[in-house]
Amino acid sequence: MSLHPSVAAVRRPVRASLAELQPGDKIVVACSGGADSLALASAAIFEGHKLGLYVIGATVDHGMQRGSEVQAAKVIAQLAEMGVDETVTATVEVKTDGDGPEAAARQARYAVLDQLAERLGASVILLGHTRDDQAETVLLGLTRGSGARSLSGMRASFDRYRRPLLTTTRIDTETACQVEGLDVWHDPHNRDFAYTRARIRHRVLPTLEEDLGPGVADALARTAEQLREDADFIDDIAEAMHRELDGTLPVETLAGYPSAVRTRVLRIAALEAGSPPAELSREHVKAVDELITGWRGQRWIDLPGHLRAKRTNGLIAFESGPFTPSA
Amino acid sequence: MSLHPSVAAVRRPVRASLAELQPGDKIVVACSGGADSLALASAAIFEGHKLGLYVIGATVDHGMQRGSEVQAAKVIAQLAEMGVDETVTATVEVKTDGDGPEAAARQARYAVLDQLAERLGASVILLGHTRDDQAETVLLGLTRGSGARSLSGMRASFDRYRRPLLTTTRIDTETACQVEGLDVWHDPHNRDFAYTRARIRHRVLPTLEEDLGPGVADALARTAEQLREDADFIDDIAEAMHRELDGTLPVETLAGYPSAVRTRVLRIAALEAGSPPAELSREHVKAVDELITGWRGQRWIDLPGHLRAKRTNGLIAFESGPFTPSA
Repeated sequence: MSLHPSVAAVRRPVRASLAELQPGDKIVVACSGGADSLALASAAIFEGHKLGLYVIGATVDHGMQRGSEVQAAKVIAQLAEMGVDETVTATVEVKTDGDGPEAAARQARYAVLDQLAERLGASVILLGHTRDDQAETVLLGLTRGSGARSLSGMRASFDRYRRPLLTTTRIDTETACQVEGLDVWHDPHNRDFAYTRARIRHRVLPTLEEDLGPGVADALARTAEQLREDADFIDDIAEAMHRELDGTLPVETLAGYPSAVRTRVLRIAALEAGSPPAELSREHVKAVDELITGWRGQRWIDLPGHLRAKRTNGLIAFESGPFTPSA
Repeated sequence: MSLHPSVAAVRRPVRASLAELQPGDKIVVACSGGADSLALASAAIFEGHKLGLYVIGATVDHGMQRGSEVQAAKVIAQLAEMGVDETVTATVEVKTDGDGPEAAARQARYAVLDQLAERLGASVILLGHTRDDQAETVLLGLTRGSGARSLSGMRASFDRYRRPLLTTTRIDTETACQVEGLDVWHDPHNRDFAYTRARIRHRVLPTLEEDLGPGVADALARTAEQLREDADFIDDIAEAMHRELDGTLPVETLAGYPSAVRTRVLRIAALEAGSPPAELSREHVKAVDELITGWRGQRWIDLPGHLRAKRTNGLIAFESGPFTPSA
């Protein structure tokens, strides 16, 4: 019997992501029991063992839902039955801070997976995010900002993390689980429309695919990849330019920069002067930019973080407040 | 009585877009009779006359709908009553080619407006596209491709064209028309769901605003502006690099370029070798890029336009077919 195309669609990128490892190397595969990470775990075991790797199946219990420890135990049993060399349950306490429960859970998850990999001597941690997760992340980015960086989605790899399924569809992971007889867990959070991501998954993306055509998720995922490359490139240039200016912002020099670079240099400088990144908007930066490109004697530009940008003696400079209302 | 905020929201950017003109200069304002262009015309007359400009109201009859000449005559009468210095109806014949009726109508419209401005000696043509049109264009771009260029929307100005309302909302143009007692035409095309743009306007954007938050259209429009800056910047660099290479593509040199630039240089080279732009996808370019970044002895990469990319003697080169199937 030939390999089912959905199983192949999961195994192929997993194989590629492990190719540079040596026999005996240890990898961690993170698994929630959902279709994505279960299909990932199965592929990681198959491909990992072919390469002589030691495969550790890990699940994280966030303790955020009733019975989460039961679900964690079920995943561990599944991973063991599937043939991992070792299983680990990591329990984390999620402290909800300003960024909301989803972000807090994510942060806690990465922290504990890092500790785990460190302790076990694993050089790679595999995460099960799919092309559909990537498309959702791009749309989520749109709600939180704009521009290349907001829309550049998740990285295919960073530090010891790899996301081999980032171009594999969710439906392929679901089909792979069916074909392999894996019992998939359906996270109730994914259906809770209080979460933006659940609305994106079940309402926004289906509408986009119906009204714009079935290629939208693919286009969003491809867009993320290209915009990340672009953003990396221009951000690097802007940082180099900013370093070269060595703390000063001469109007004449900056005026010669292309707009894409100049606005980024000004943003870096404003952040360095203490403006909070979450509050410093494109509109703020453009107003500062107008001190260079649309100079008409503006007195100053108010910025978040009790900051003012001014043009004096051919330089842009930031002053810290507090300023009195009458000033 | 103070100025209504919606009227101000239309007049302010129109004023700014005319600021560099001299008394006696002629401008053309293009008007379909819809809220956007009617509000634009009203603002152009008000602000134009304050600056001593000669304001020409133009409408284009595409002849694509029954009774379009009646609508054109109505717009001309409206423009005359609003106080333009001259009115012109341009009749165009739309030839539908491969790009569909919308693109054909747009092309014909620009051609006739250009001729008109040339003949009348007008230095500026104002177009009524709003922030909402811009958001729609970004989503439309997503259906046709991906990456910064597809998502960079409409330019605020090009040649003699200006789009002063590109950051003004459609609702402001509609309110401005109501406040000023202007009788707005509702283009039946805008409600014809056979057109992707109509689906975007009436189904996709409302869903996005409902599920992602009311700031989505704004975020899309801001995104377009930033991505256009980024794309302009990187495209310029890639073109300069390509010119510098002077017709050769040395692997060693290209390997040192950042990915964002290298893939663009390869795309330019493939287009120059004769690959059709509409068919040459990101996937094709990435496969060629793998000859540099993922070299494992690939024989060649097939590209649209009967073309092959090969790596030979440390160079990437394109060969033209036709190739026999057995080759």
